[in-house]
Amino acid sequence: MPDAAAEPTPSWLRPRPPIRSGAEYVESLRGRNLRVFLLGERVAEPVDHPVIRPSINAVARTYDLADERPELATAVVAATGERVNRFLHVTESVADVVQQNKMQRRLGQLTGTCFQRCVGMDAINALWTTTWLIDQAKQTGYHARLRAFVRAMQRQNLVVGGAMTDVKGDRGKSPAEQADPDMFVRVVRREPGGLVIRGAKAHQTGCVNSHWLVVMPTMRLGPKDRDYAVVCAVPVDHPGLTFVVGRQSCDTRALEGGSVDVGNANYGGQEALIVFDDVFVPDELVFMDGEHEFAADLVERFTAYHRRSYVCKAGVGDVLIGAAALIADYNGVPQVSHVRDKLVEMAHLNETIYGAGIAASHESSPTPAGNFQNDGMLANVCKHNVTRFPYEMARLAQDLAGGLLATLPSEHDFKHEEIGPLLKKYLVGRDGASAEMRARALRLIENLTMGRNAVGYLTESMHGAGSPQAQRIQIARQMQLEEKKELARVLAGIAGGSED
Amino acid sequence: MPDAAAEPTPSWLRPRPPIRSGAEYVESLRGRNLRVFLLGERVAEPVDHPVIRPSINAVARTYDLADERPELATAVVAATGERVNRFLHVTESVADVVQQNKMQRRLGQLTGTCFQRCVGMDAINALWTTTWLIDQAKQTGYHARLRAFVRAMQRQNLVVGGAMTDVKGDRGKSPAEQADPDMFVRVVRREPGGLVIRGAKAHQTGCVNSHWLVVMPTMRLGPKDRDYAVVCAVPVDHPGLTFVVGRQSCDTRALEGGSVDVGNANYGGQEALIVFDDVFVPDELVFMDGEHEFAADLVERFTAYHRRSYVCKAGVGDVLIGAAALIADYNGVPQVSHVRDKLVEMAHLNETIYGAGIAASHESSPTPAGNFQNDGMLANVCKHNVTRFPYEMARLAQDLAGGLLATLPSEHDFKHEEIGPLLKKYLVGRDGASAEMRARALRLIENLTMGRNAVGYLTESMHGAGSPQAQRIQIARQMQLEEKKELARVLAGIAGGSED
Amino acid sequence: MPDAAAEPTPSWLRPRPPIRSGAEYVESLRGRNLRVFLLGERVAEPVDHPVIRPSINAVARTYDLADERPELATAVVAATGERVNRFLHVTESVADVVQQNKMQRRLGQLTGTCFQRCVGMDAINALWTTTWLIDQAKQTGYHARLRAFVRAMQRQNLVVGGAMTDVKGDRGKSPAEQADPDMFVRVVRREPGGLVIRGAKAHQTGCVNSHWLVVMPTMRLGPKDRDYAVVCAVPVDHPGLTFVVGRQSCDTRALEGGSVDVGNANYGGQEALIVFDDVFVPDELVFMDGEHEFAADLVERFTAYHRRSYVCKAGVGDVLIGAAALIADYNGVPQVSHVRDKLVEMAHLNETIYGAGIAASHESSPTPAGNFQNDGMLANVCKHNVTRFPYEMARLAQDLAGGLLATLPSEHDFKHEEIGPLLKKYLVGRDGASAEMRARALRLIENLTMGRNAVGYLTESMHGAGSPQAQRIQIARQMQLEEKKELARVLAGIAGGSED
Amino acid sequence: MPDAAAEPTPSWLRPRPPIRSGAEYVESLRGRNLRVFLLGERVAEPVDHPVIRPSINAVARTYDLADERPELATAVVAATGERVNRFLHVTESVADVVQQNKMQRRLGQLTGTCFQRCVGMDAINALWTTTWLIDQAKQTGYHARLRAFVRAMQRQNLVVGGAMTDVKGDRGKSPAEQADPDMFVRVVRREPGGLVIRGAKAHQTGCVNSHWLVVMPTMRLGPKDRDYAVVCAVPVDHPGLTFVVGRQSCDTRALEGGSVDVGNANYGGQEALIVFDDVFVPDELVFMDGEHEFAADLVERFTAYHRRSYVCKAGVGDVLIGAAALIADYNGVPQVSHVRDKLVEMAHLNETIYGAGIAASHESSPTPAGNFQNDGMLANVCKHNVTRFPYEMARLAQDLAGGLLATLPSEHDFKHEEIGPLLKKYLVGRDGASAEMRARALRLIENLTMGRNAVGYLTESMHGAGSPQAQRIQIARQMQLEEKKELARVLAGIAGGSED
Repeated sequence: MPDAAAEPTPSWLRPRPPIRSGAEYVESLRGRNLRVFLLGERVAEPVDHPVIRPSINAVARTYDLADERPELATAVVAATGERVNRFLHVTESVADVVQQNKMQRRLGQLTGTCFQRCVGMDAINALWTTTWLIDQAKQTGYHARLRAFVRAMQRQNLVVGGAMTDVKGDRGKSPAEQADPDMFVRVVRREPGGLVIRGAKAHQTGCVNSHWLVVMPTMRLGPKDRDYAVVCAVPVDHPGLTFVVGRQSCDTRALEGGSVDVGNANYGGQEALIVFDDVFVPDELVFMDGEHEFAADLVERFTAYHRRSYVCKAGVGDVLIGAAALIADYNGVPQVSHVRDKLVEMAHLNETIYGAGIAASHESSPTPAGNFQNDGMLANVCKHNVTRFPYEMARLAQDLAGGLLATLPSEHDFKHEEIGPLLKKYLVGRDGASAEMRARALRLIENLTMGRNAVGYLTESMHGAGSPQAQRIQIARQMQLEEKKELARVLAGIAGGSED
Repeated sequence: MPDAAAEPTPSWLRPRPPIRSGAEYVESLRGRNLRVFLLGERVAEPVDHPVIRPSINAVARTYDLADERPELATAVVAATGERVNRFLHVTESVADVVQQNKMQRRLGQLTGTCFQRCVGMDAINALWTTTWLIDQAKQTGYHARLRAFVRAMQRQNLVVGGAMTDVKGDRGKSPAEQADPDMFVRVVRREPGGLVIRGAKAHQTGCVNSHWLVVMPTMRLGPKDRDYAVVCAVPVDHPGLTFVVGRQSCDTRALEGGSVDVGNANYGGQEALIVFDDVFVPDELVFMDGEHEFAADLVERFTAYHRRSYVCKAGVGDVLIGAAALIADYNGVPQVSHVRDKLVEMAHLNETIYGAGIAASHESSPTPAGNFQNDGMLANVCKHNVTRFPYEMARLAQDLAGGLLATLPSEHDFKHEEIGPLLKKYLVGRDGASAEMRARALRLIENLTMGRNAVGYLTESMHGAGSPQAQRIQIARQMQLEEKKELARVLAGIAGGSED
Repeated sequence: MPDAAAEPTPSWLRPRPPIRSGAEYVESLRGRNLRVFLLGERVAEPVDHPVIRPSINAVARTYDLADERPELATAVVAATGERVNRFLHVTESVADVVQQNKMQRRLGQLTGTCFQRCVGMDAINALWTTTWLIDQAKQTGYHARLRAFVRAMQRQNLVVGGAMTDVKGDRGKSPAEQADPDMFVRVVRREPGGLVIRGAKAHQTGCVNSHWLVVMPTMRLGPKDRDYAVVCAVPVDHPGLTFVVGRQSCDTRALEGGSVDVGNANYGGQEALIVFDDVFVPDELVFMDGEHEFAADLVERFTAYHRRSYVCKAGVGDVLIGAAALIADYNGVPQVSHVRDKLVEMAHLNETIYGAGIAASHESSPTPAGNFQNDGMLANVCKHNVTRFPYEMARLAQDLAGGLLATLPSEHDFKHEEIGPLLKKYLVGRDGASAEMRARALRLIENLTMGRNAVGYLTESMHGAGSPQAQRIQIARQMQLEEKKELARVLAGIAGGSED
Repeated sequence: MPDAAAEPTPSWLRPRPPIRSGAEYVESLRGRNLRVFLLGERVAEPVDHPVIRPSINAVARTYDLADERPELATAVVAATGERVNRFLHVTESVADVVQQNKMQRRLGQLTGTCFQRCVGMDAINALWTTTWLIDQAKQTGYHARLRAFVRAMQRQNLVVGGAMTDVKGDRGKSPAEQADPDMFVRVVRREPGGLVIRGAKAHQTGCVNSHWLVVMPTMRLGPKDRDYAVVCAVPVDHPGLTFVVGRQSCDTRALEGGSVDVGNANYGGQEALIVFDDVFVPDELVFMDGEHEFAADLVERFTAYHRRSYVCKAGVGDVLIGAAALIADYNGVPQVSHVRDKLVEMAHLNETIYGAGIAASHESSPTPAGNFQNDGMLANVCKHNVTRFPYEMARLAQDLAGGLLATLPSEHDFKHEEIGPLLKKYLVGRDGASAEMRARALRLIENLTMGRNAVGYLTESMHGAGSPQAQRIQIARQMQLEEKKELARVLAGIAGGSED
């Protein structure tokens, strides 16, 4: 890949005016000639692909929200006085951390899907501290490089994705133990002025829609894993990258040309596999190289931020509750006690998610590097509930939806000359609730519980930011069991127990 | 629809040899010229439609099982000594009822989907008693008609579907109160030699794949609902019928030409809307006409049978457990304690479903009409667990699957010249677990938890045979609260409480 | 303990007429001079001790039920034609196994507690097969000895307790690895004509109320554990036995002299620690001695029976549901939808327990020894639900009870001259529901959820017949994971998968 | 009760120095000659009663914590600069509200029980706003009276209890509809300079241990309930008051003279019935009289505070987790995976409770009266989880405890000459874990899950601050269903839905 080495950071060098709106953001993605594959074909222009476009719209919505509600979706950098998009802002206060969560919930409400920018936000904030700590320990200069990178991103107002999850091969083995050493992204060689990485990152949220990617290790590493301890920034349009967009449940409905059966016509998520084919990264974009003992610190900081970022799902949950209430209304039973009770249960679960997440943010504290880090225990608790409650909420929504949720004819049938009138007659709800209104409400519930956005609302809720067991390990580490045992010993009168 | 009246029961009159295999069954469906619509188009031949065919295969599997394991999937009619398909058999013993459940679980295991014949089986058995009771009370002759119909079905070895669920309009109103009187199927007029019905039945399982339909009321009816109290048999190829097949999550993957992304290439379910456009039914096929006070008896008997028929989902659950174990194995972590523990939890929930169902069958007792009826309480309990546990099992399976479940590239990408090799390299699992093996296991889990068969495994588990609240109402009716209060009074020493 | 050796089996040799009623049973316990300790004192006569007596009454109830409903609580031995108490009957048919469960549920309803005879019943039935298998494998003569013992028990109509759970010391170590070898009951020496055992058995249900104990090992044993592989019968009044009755929540309320605050004045459970101080057992009462490789078979058979015996808790659950309905009624809100719904949920959970248990019995099959053994998987599933659902039912009952459940003044306050009238005025419920009626209903709920019978309804439900993890291990063993993986492989189209 | 009228507010008039420690607090309770009844007898001096004393110790602990950690358990009143106990502080900032929660959790950890002062704290804060609002609407002078009262409490550093829950009679009827008008506390007559109240308040937390009570209505009131709309302060030693202390599970163990079987020898809760026998209250202590339309405002504000105050249960939960970890350790299995996993689950549930509570506090906002009110939705969500998770945590703790939890002999047996040595031998755990250590750990778990503090940890968690249904009603009110429906309409493309 000599071309790549010859012009390693094209986007970086190209001066560009800041993106000022969702529309400008969409335009910024055009003409990048990315190697993107979807459904067995190379995608000529992702912006115009009906399956991909909804995921771009979701990111665009974050830009527009910054315009509409700057207090929510932007922040002012104290050092410069510049107002930047909150997704690019390094937290300077507890309020900054809290406001991230409120922005995330609102965007979940507005899009009903994953808007894909949290990984980058959380990565920048985690690296802010970890690079500072490495520098302190090792007299390296990573933190200054990161600052420069972040400032550039802020000024150009770009989308930064975070590339963390490796493909992993045999889960029972460490990176260095794998039969194929490329199962985790690694430095294959170091060259003057930079290093070359190879490997693949799986389920990369919004990567095709990003401008830059920050590559990070996915787990605690040992001395043998030194070459896997690499953090760096790579422009998305680097020719050494290949993107294979994961297919989603019901993805091809977007190719059918309607607006009903897709459920949520405007918005969707995106996750892709990224292959790094010996990509050269110049030193100024490298933020960790070999300091394996800091991989765990980075992962722990990032996941602490990111597990609380899942309050976005409470925003999506708001949409699901609304859709369930809508269909109950259209069915003529909004006040029936068991219907009402199920909506209350959904709201209760939804706010339980939000409560732990926003609490984790409120309980933030300053790091040695000066930014603010949220509470780790509560963040893990938030995410762990996210691996449970959306599934129960989906179950309740399907209960309220009625069986038609899974037997509704297609919208093409509704438009059919012969059977369209029959469907409109027979699938009507209460007075004023047309068959189409019911169909649209049902398709939205289908979208969120079995369809395209179920990927984000359920499966990604399960595995994003770490699978359930990852949270349990963190909870175990942070649950202060010895202190709790001491509390018990004191009250039980067991010798050795002494009141503090 | 004068043509319909002119030739009311074409299939009935046409003498036909019995169907002897799955293959013969498939052939029996050809050339019927049904009015079937799917995805906005009339289907010329359902047998050859890639989306419909898997549902036909699932029914065909029931015929083949009858050959392979006659003790399981057939029964001998005592009165005649004839061996008939168990789905057409009127239970003659407790063992007959139990064996239905064992057959159902096995078919769930073999197909991983809904095989669509239980409604008919349960309808025949419920009607066997209800017609007898009506005759006793009203000196009608329904039972003899039903016997003749059942014998004909058995001899020809046909598939009988049951058409119960009306479209219902405003759920807050009774049939007679609806703005449009056609929201529940009804007798629009009575003619010499028969009656004419109109209306629509929603989510009719396997109806296109059936030879005959038994139309039944969907709920308890009052005196004003007399015209809605109609039970009759109608041949599926009656020209007055229109079928609109409901679309399912990921249904169009069957049109893509592969065998991986569909998850379960051979088998699927089917539910359709049936519109009855003033269909004439001759008297000999009418099993209830106006006896509204027996509608509740029929519904209660039918749902008692049918709610326990949902042990089929334990069979499908076996497949899901197997698939989850498979991917854990391929990922290299089959013995990790939390993985093992989740598989145990899935098995526990799955067997809890089975336990209540098979118990309901074992606790059957003879009806006045001579057939055997299962225990109603346990059947409702079985079904109520079915509205919960498959969702939790799906959640656990998604947990075990890992994030790739929802981000896996399409099989077309795997076959692509450029990226196919990359995917095969990077998505490999433990030694011996190729990327394709992982992909197939994941697609099967997707199929069952978000895809086409999630419709059957989850949503239909929720609403089939009555939504959760319907079971709660039955449990409330049967929970003998006064007896339980008396037990408590006696032990608490409350005056009036006396030991039995 | 030379006296013990001199007269090893006093009860055995003493000829006695059969016990014919609960009253005769109570008399049979008098004057045995057992070494029973409770609350720090030796109990002169357990029959007359207010704390112990309710547990004796519960056993007595099983005798009376045999009179009242012989079809339920007795059985006829085919070989002799003799009618015997079902608790002493060796199952001769599937119906026998099923009927055990129905008797157990009924006794749970009648006593609201543990009636203590199931361990013996299940031990006899498990040993029936295991002794037969040992004899087959080793040419021993255990089975004939057991037959003789069982016949004697049947003829005298005695209570046989089973002593299985050892005290265990360090749970991380096997019997032979313990610092003190007595942590599991063992043979300390073999003498002419018999052997001598030492050790202690914990939580022995109803042991003081029994006439005989069958000592059994508690777990799978290895070659080093040979001396722990001992099964034998010991008379309860053997002078080498010491019983320390475990204290229970609220146990001393029985000493207060009232009938309200105890909650359930007549019935309670009993569990005690038994110390075996070098007890000589003659050969004819030894049913295993050293055949360590059969310990697992015995434990598995016994737990298969016994885990399904926990359907008794569905009987106790009936009482709890009744009590909750009673207090809702007295509070004036029996028809409020959320109240009704919670009662339905309790009934649903309760019947789910029953369903799996009765299913396990219905699915029994003959053993090589000729008796009938229930299905192991469903039995484990039943018990595993018992470790969960009674807790949730208790929670729901406490919800329905209202806060007064835990703040109600004592019955002595109700009788107090000054404040009694105030309490009767202020704690009244709906018209017709006196303060005392409310108090009695609440005390029964307290008894079952926090008080004396919570020990049986909750904690023993958790740990009796094996703690939850023990069931999970059995479920793991029996869940046929390879077969399930094969089902999945076939449907997923994975090479090597072939349809059966 | 003319005496009462003659000397209506003895404590109020008597000048007293502030209480400065737990010990001084205990002394302050002596010699008050309260009419307290317990177990059928009038208690001469509650301070010296073994059953009552632990509840006094728990309150005393709040005084000592104020000394030890003033930043946590005291606050400075901005207007005066005086440092006051946080339980008497009117919140002046968000941080004040948050700090209440942290103090509550810490006290839960230190006492393992209910420390009884939150009701007063939350009542003062709720009334602060409601009295201000009434004054604004009605030109009354309640707020100034309340300020004076609060200032006096702060200066004297007294314990203020809140008396809210009426005895209610028939729950299906409003106060004015009851057969006996005294079922809710009411103004029976108005006299010059004051009013006279009659009725009873049930389950009054820590009332005997308080110096003053604030009487408040328990629910939304209508115009007919005008006389029930009364708020006033009453000194606990007013002769018109009678207290009947509710009995608790295992309460009399405190009379047995040991320190093991009580489980938590030092600390316990207290709830009593208070009867108001025509108590005269002077005008300056009346804070609402007849303004029925503000009853709902007061109840809603109070419950918003108080439902989040239940984070104290997370502190008690810490003790339970510690006790469960302790017994697992003593049993020799602390690292077994299922044991570890259950501890993690307990911690997860416990922190979920805390998360929603502390989030509710962090999301506080200023009221028109100048103090700070927490978020109502999150507070209700916190409390609703408290009605569920402690029960599941108790279940898990009982699982980890093992069966000995409910069969352990009494501590008197351990001290017995003959059997004590046997128990010490046979009930030993892993090396270093004596039988007594195990016994003490188990008795603490028993105490929290079935015994005296289960009353506070479970039943009061269920019903305190409103039963579960009360939270569901509040969640329903606050869940903004119309806004959520609009979100869904916009995304589903339903006409009328427009993006905000």
